[in-house]
Amino acid sequence: MDRQANHAARPAIDFWFDFSSPYSYVASEWIEALAARHGRTVRWHAMLLGATFQAAELKSPVSYPLKREYSMRDFARSARFEGVPFTPPERFPIATQNAARVFWWLHDEHDPARAAAWAHAGLRAYFARGVMLDDAAALKRLAGESGLDPEAAEAVWADPRWKARLKQVNEQAVAAGIFGAPWIVVDGEPFWGNDRRAQIERWLAQGPF
Amino acid sequence: MDRQANHAARPAIDFWFDFSSPYSYVASEWIEALAARHGRTVRWHAMLLGATFQAAELKSPVSYPLKREYSMRDFARSARFEGVPFTPPERFPIATQNAARVFWWLHDEHDPARAAAWAHAGLRAYFARGVMLDDAAALKRLAGESGLDPEAAEAVWADPRWKARLKQVNEQAVAAGIFGAPWIVVDGEPFWGNDRRAQIERWLAQGPF
Repeated sequence: MDRQANHAARPAIDFWFDFSSPYSYVASEWIEALAARHGRTVRWHAMLLGATFQAAELKSPVSYPLKREYSMRDFARSARFEGVPFTPPERFPIATQNAARVFWWLHDEHDPARAAAWAHAGLRAYFARGVMLDDAAALKRLAGESGLDPEAAEAVWADPRWKARLKQVNEQAVAAGIFGAPWIVVDGEPFWGNDRRAQIERWLAQGPF
Repeated sequence: MDRQANHAARPAIDFWFDFSSPYSYVASEWIEALAARHGRTVRWHAMLLGATFQAAELKSPVSYPLKREYSMRDFARSARFEGVPFTPPERFPIATQNAARVFWWLHDEHDPARAAAWAHAGLRAYFARGVMLDDAAALKRLAGESGLDPEAAEAVWADPRWKARLKQVNEQAVAAGIFGAPWIVVDGEPFWGNDRRAQIERWLAQGPF
């Protein structure tokens, strides 16, 4: 077996995110290159953090005034630290179920790679260009720019089938003990947060530590 | 002005911690060497996280079952990552006001370096050797092992003067917007968490980013 085939057989990295999570956005910009350097691929999972917060009886960190103030500063600093373009969105957080339903439609009906491309498009639009993903017109425009049929995208996010699919994913996240984003699982080991990058790198390079 | 004098004039790093904070313990093991490499010193501040949680209307992360489970795993992994000995304490978290009062007594009546040594002694005792700092007999023994008079230490933590001193520090922490530990301030920039090490390193090496 050659080196590449050997690498290709290594388990994928699971990357759980919410389109409204700044740390998910920052991590989304490094996870694929990091995975590739270690012969891994990335499996993307769009979820709603709100559903996991509710299950864990948590609130968003930015619902606490002091924590919000620090976090807003840290979002921008963490993006600069990773060299990722970031513009604090005018409204934050926002509802992201429509973007997430389009993700799962692409994932299930087209292919996971197109869903991953949509994940990048949505995260970059919201966090670098101020595109409000909770605004139907803005989201349709983004779908169009991303090579999708805007009307088809709108039909998807209003469709009970894709509503149910996202609900199922959220339940899967809760069942897996996920309560934050990004939630990155490598060989069964959970890492919560953009700030676990160094630990993930060591795990990928050396195995369990 | 020679290089050392120049370095010595650079502002100290403020390190706020709670004796019951595992991430404070891990960070306490690298902060001084990191500071020294950049010509900085460390100013230690023992506080009670509970007071800052109350002010910010937060609860300890480990009061949420799911977050507790992840955190316990992450405490140990983060310690291993930094090469710091760690044994999960039998009881966690614990009340740390007595250890903190002794800290401020040493700080104010003796010198900050002795207080910093006590900080290390207390954090290592609790997180590496299972010494319960909320147990009066255990804490007196630790004081003795640390070269203090155990009876004097006990008198300190029962003394209204040192109770008031710690209360004042907690109020100072709240006024500064602190809501977690370790809370590390470099040139006025706040960094929350052992996991901000890489950002702190870059700041110290290159200045604001």
